[in-house]
Formats: sequence, C-alpha cells, structure tokens
Amino acid sequence: MKAVVLNCTLKKSPDRSNTQLLADVVVKALEGRGVEVRAFRVVDHDVPPGVVTDLGEGDEWPMLHDELLAAEILVIATPTWVGHPSSVAQRVIERMDAMISEQDADGRPVAYNRVAGVVVTGNEDGAHHVISEVSGALVDIGYTIPGQSWTYWNMGPGPGPDYPDTVHGHEWSRSTGEAMAANLHAVARALARSPIPAPPSSG
Amino acid sequence: MKAVVLNCTLKKSPDRSNTQLLADVVVKALEGRGVEVRAFRVVDHDVPPGVVTDLGEGDEWPMLHDELLAAEILVIATPTWVGHPSSVAQRVIERMDAMISEQDADGRPVAYNRVAGVVVTGNEDGAHHVISEVSGALVDIGYTIPGQSWTYWNMGPGPGPDYPDTVHGHEWSRSTGEAMAANLHAVARALARSPIPAPPSSG
Amino acid sequence: MKAVVLNCTLKKSPDRSNTQLLADVVVKALEGRGVEVRAFRVVDHDVPPGVVTDLGEGDEWPMLHDELLAAEILVIATPTWVGHPSSVAQRVIERMDAMISEQDADGRPVAYNRVAGVVVTGNEDGAHHVISEVSGALVDIGYTIPGQSWTYWNMGPGPGPDYPDTVHGHEWSRSTGEAMAANLHAVARALARSPIPAPPSSG
Amino acid sequence: MKAVVLNCTLKKSPDRSNTQLLADVVVKALEGRGVEVRAFRVVDHDVPPGVVTDLGEGDEWPMLHDELLAAEILVIATPTWVGHPSSVAQRVIERMDAMISEQDADGRPVAYNRVAGVVVTGNEDGAHHVISEVSGALVDIGYTIPGQSWTYWNMGPGPGPDYPDTVHGHEWSRSTGEAMAANLHAVARALARSPIPAPPSSG
Repeated sequence: MKAVVLNCTLKKSPDRSNTQLLADVVVKALEGRGVEVRAFRVVDHDVPPGVVTDLGEGDEWPMLHDELLAAEILVIATPTWVGHPSSVAQRVIERMDAMISEQDADGRPVAYNRVAGVVVTGNEDGAHHVISEVSGALVDIGYTIPGQSWTYWNMGPGPGPDYPDTVHGHEWSRSTGEAMAANLHAVARALARSPIPAPPSSG
Repeated sequence: MKAVVLNCTLKKSPDRSNTQLLADVVVKALEGRGVEVRAFRVVDHDVPPGVVTDLGEGDEWPMLHDELLAAEILVIATPTWVGHPSSVAQRVIERMDAMISEQDADGRPVAYNRVAGVVVTGNEDGAHHVISEVSGALVDIGYTIPGQSWTYWNMGPGPGPDYPDTVHGHEWSRSTGEAMAANLHAVARALARSPIPAPPSSG
Repeated sequence: MKAVVLNCTLKKSPDRSNTQLLADVVVKALEGRGVEVRAFRVVDHDVPPGVVTDLGEGDEWPMLHDELLAAEILVIATPTWVGHPSSVAQRVIERMDAMISEQDADGRPVAYNRVAGVVVTGNEDGAHHVISEVSGALVDIGYTIPGQSWTYWNMGPGPGPDYPDTVHGHEWSRSTGEAMAANLHAVARALARSPIPAPPSSG
Repeated sequence: MKAVVLNCTLKKSPDRSNTQLLADVVVKALEGRGVEVRAFRVVDHDVPPGVVTDLGEGDEWPMLHDELLAAEILVIATPTWVGHPSSVAQRVIERMDAMISEQDADGRPVAYNRVAGVVVTGNEDGAHHVISEVSGALVDIGYTIPGQSWTYWNMGPGPGPDYPDTVHGHEWSRSTGEAMAANLHAVARALARSPIPAPPSSG
C-alpha cells in the first residue's frame, strides 16, 4: 500500500517546515504499518494556478498527479493562515478539481477507493475549520475520509508559539496522528478488498 | 443493513419539508439496495440543547441516539439558512458530541465503521459549505464519509424558488443522490467486512 | 448609545456560562465608554425555530428583536461546539433572517447603521471560523462589522480547559476584547453622525 | 476617495475573467459616486507565497501593498473553486497578514478606517461561504465590512454555466453590486469624517 503526503507549507526548502514535523508523526505511523510513503513539499515545485491536469511546459503538477494516482492514501498537510488552509493547499485542491471528471477503466472517478486525511499546524486557532475545508473538498473530488483521520497542533488564544517552540500538547497531537494513520490504513484496506463500484448510470 | 435519516428542517409536521423531498430520493435509492431506512424529522421531537446523551426527563434525544447506534448509515438532511446548516442540524451535532467518548465492546468510538452523508436544500447558495461543515463534524465524531456521498439543490443567485417550485436541476440532484446512496452502501459494506480496529493505545 | 449582548451558551441559568465571563470584559469596556448595555442569555427564553419575526403565542423572540432594534451595537457571544457556532447562535441568526426584508422609515434594511461583533469561547480550537460564520451572516443581514471587533479564548490542541480553569491567555483575550469595544463604539458613532443612506433603487 | 479592486481569478491576461465582468459593475457604481478606482489582476503579477510585506527581488506584492494603503476602499473579487476562495485570493490574504502589525502615525493598524467588500462568481454554489471567509479574514486584519457589501453570481445546482453564458440572475447580481458600492462609499465616508482611534493601550 502506498501513501502520498503533500506538504502545503509556504516555505521553500531548505527552510524548516513546522507542518512537516507533525506530518512526520503520521508518516512514521504509516510506515510502521507497512505503507510506502512519499512526501512532497509542493512549493518546491512549479505548480501554476489552474483547474486542468496539465498546463503545459514547466508545469510540475502532472508529476504530483501521477503520484496521487499511484497511492491509495493521501495526506494533505497545511499550515493555518488567517484561519484558512494555505494558498498552496488551495492551489493543490484546484488542480485536483480536474480529477472529478477523470475515470478509471471501470468508469469510476479516479479518486474512488482512495482515502485522505489532513494534518494542520498553526501559531493560532483555526485547525478544525481547515480540516473541514480540505476534507469537504476531497469528498467532492471522490476521496473517502475515514473517521478521525486528522491531527493538528496549535496553542491559542491569539498568536502563540510555533509547534517546535514548546512541548505543550505534542503528546495529544502525536497520539491523534497515530490513530489517523491507523484509520487511513484500515479504510484503504477495506476499500481494496471491497471496492466502491462505478456510480449508477444516470440514464 | 440499516440507515437513519435525520431531517433537520425548521418546520414541524405536518408542514411540507422541501428537504424531505430531496432526502426521499436518497431513501428510495438506499431501499432499492436492500437497506432498511428509518427517517425522523428532528423538530417533531423534544431535543433540548446540550452535549451529553441523556438530559433527563422529556429528552427525546436518547431515542434518536439509539437509532444512530442501530444503523450503519446516517444521512443528515438540512436546509440552508443564511448560508449555514440549520440550528436543528447543529443541535443534532452537539448532542452527537457525547459519542466521541462512548466506546463499543472492543474499545472503539461508537461511530467507527459507520458512514454518513449529507443532503442539502435551500432557496439560496450555500450547499457546499453546509456539506463541509456537517461532514467535518461527523468525521470528528468518528463517522467515515464516503467519496461523493452528498447531494444538494438550490438555484442561485440570490433568493430563488424552493425545490418543489421548479424542475430546474432536479435531474442532477436526483442522479447525484443516487450515486450518494450507492457510495454510502458500498463503503458501509466494505467496513462491515473489514472493520476499522480500535485505535492504537496512546500509552 | 445602546448595546445588546446575546449570550448563545447552551446552558440555562443559573448554570455558569464561560462565554458570559469573557463577554463581561466587553460589556464592562462598552460601559466604560458610556454605552448602556443589556445582556440576554437566549436559552433562558423560548425561541422556537423559524425565519419570521413572530411565531405567535409563547414566542419570546419578538422581545429580543425589539431589543436589537433599540440598540446601535450587537454582540453575539457563543461557545464553540464541534468547531461551529452553537445551535443557539444559529437559531438567533435564523430568526434575524426576517430582518433582511424589514425596513426603517427611510426604506433602509433595519440593520443598516448598526454594528456587530463576536465573542467566542471554547475548550477547543474553532474561534476564527465561528467569528467568520457569525460576522458573515450579520453582514448579509445588514450589520456593519468594524475592523477587529471580536475576541476569543481557547487553548488547543485538543480538548483542554475551560476559560475559568486557567489564566493562560486571559490577558490577550481581555485586551483584544477592549479593542473590540472601542472599535464597535467608534464605528457606531461614525455611522450615527454620517449614516448609510437607503440603497439605490434597483428600478 | 480611492478604491482598489484585486481580481483573484486564476486566469492570466488576456484570457477573459468572468469575475472581472461582475466586478466591473461595482467599479462603475463606485466611479459613479466619484471614487477613483484602480483594478489589478493579481495573477498577472509575481506574488510569491509568504506572510511578510516584501519578499525581496522580483516580488510585486509591495506595489500592490502600496496601492492598498493609498485606498480607503478594497474590493476582493474571486471565483469559487471547490467551494472556496481561489488560491490567488488566499495568497493575497496571506500577504496582507503582515498588515496586522503595521501601524499608521497614530499607532493604529494600517487597515483601520478602510472598508472592504467581496465579489464572487462561480459555475457552482459556494458564494456565501467565500464571502464569509474573505470578510472574516479582512476583519481580522482591521478592515471594516459595511452591511451588505458584497455581490455574487452562480446558478446551481451542480456545475452550470459561467456568468457570461446566460442572463439568468444578472439583474439581481447587478443591483446587489450597486448597493454594495453605495454601502462601501457611505461607510468609508463616515470613517473619514469620524475615524476609529488607536486601540486602547493594553498596559
């Protein structure tokens, strides 16, 4: 089983990504269950705005799109900015919009029988909303969202420390992330054994 | 397999509920797949505000709570008011909050291995947000949200007709609702065959 | 100048409302600026679901509606439940929906030239979203939202203490609430001196 | 009085922007009130991800930032993608985040005494949520949101026509946009005459 993690931090490598630090908890827990994980920092790639899969020369989204189609599990990891998913996370969702009309050999939207979860960090409140926004968009595209398949970290109220600046709450975020990995893995396995069929004809 | 539909209209019986009319499409499609469906109009019951399962004498939530635990599939059907899920839908979510700490015999949150979807109507724009809000809350509680397990109807922009006042878009809402029923059924079946285990110990 | 605070806690009097404790910071700051403040705990009143101003016998919303029309400033204070405004806050917004089509003597929606702000508490993350949801709905109805006219308190990640259980962050929530009161007062005064006229005829 | 319109379409010039077509209604109405309007298509400029005002060589945000500070009125115009504000709109909000700690000569956040509104188009439902998300973020930054200072266009349910493909609902979107322009202008004028003072010292 394969998983892809898209880290939607605003910071290019080699800057430290706080979001990656929490995502790594989920990566490690997935690997502990035998899942092969590939992680990408989206902002290190050239992903122009648009809603088609291939915008032509220089567009690196098609490579990420192929990674998504090779993986049963997707993890979107994003910081919280002004209470929202990052612009990079929204860019990813926009590019994934084209997947709604892409079908597999059996006539199913390509996201069917794939599962997704969300990792959120922030120096301020906002994680629940970010999780709902990203999960809602991925359900729209066809991903299944397992119960409790998210984790987050922040420390309100108001602007506070970044994730690595304190140990406050790390244990909760870690154990929640491990449950997330277990639930993603379990539902991906269930769908592999007993897949969602093609949608009924609307004819 | 059993399903429960909670219609979160603001209108008591016997007033006509537009939301029920669209929910009925999903009910019929679930029944066509052999699912036993029970539907409740929440506002016909006394469900006081709170975040525990039983608020004592006169509280009818415990009956609805038992229905939820008897069903593998949950459908929340809600109108859109000022762009949000109805206050009745939010009341239901608040009462379900207690389910986060209720466990089955194997130590799993009781919502694990159950699936949920959302039906939305409105005389104005707002359905995508309502679907994200309700789905996000249900994932928090432990329900799994199958890909494309929602349908909606409205006709923007601005205040427009109610669902039964026109046939505009009914065909899209119907076929989307039938796909929703198929996806809810398929994922509930997959989880019945291959269930999510109890979360890893955080010890 | 007059202000109304609607406390949308789920708990009836005489239970302690954590939300009221933070709202009191704003009340005191408004009073310090000479504003006459009246506060209501909505759940102590019979406010049935609906979208008209008067649902008939036993409906106590018309009394609250009259209070709104007597005040230049509105403060919605709400707890966060499963990341959302409380069902009581949404009930209030639904009842206020009727105000969109109520006009003053000059043909303006009745909410024009009134200002509003939001106070949020929670034992978990969610305040920014609650503020956006409530503010967005009130703008729809015609209220003006002054810059930085909100305050909140929570302490993530995960379920944590209630507001009165710790002093963590109280100072930030207090000074933010005092700025909120100042901004509500300043913009209400500006609109009193230089009001928004009736909307241009759409004819 | 000056206004800036930031069009957050995903499409670079010279491609047609549907969002611009509706924004132009608001531009024309503002100009009819004597406001000098400058409009920018953000995606035609190099605005890299980040949360500071100046990211250095090649960053064109500082030019847009200066335009914001020269204008009393801001209009964010955005398409709806998967139910959310566009990634370009979120990029703008992230870059504006730095304005929270920028102060004018009197110690006020620079956004104080400026007003903002939102224009939304889409080929699907989502506008109310987009308006709440953008308005909520701008209130956070310090902008005042006048009552009913938005307009939108879409035609649900499901994927439908683009704004210029039909005349359905154009009249409503136009008159709502004209009211938006009137309200932005009126509140900007009120704040010019009677400004919000610096926040109370938190000392």
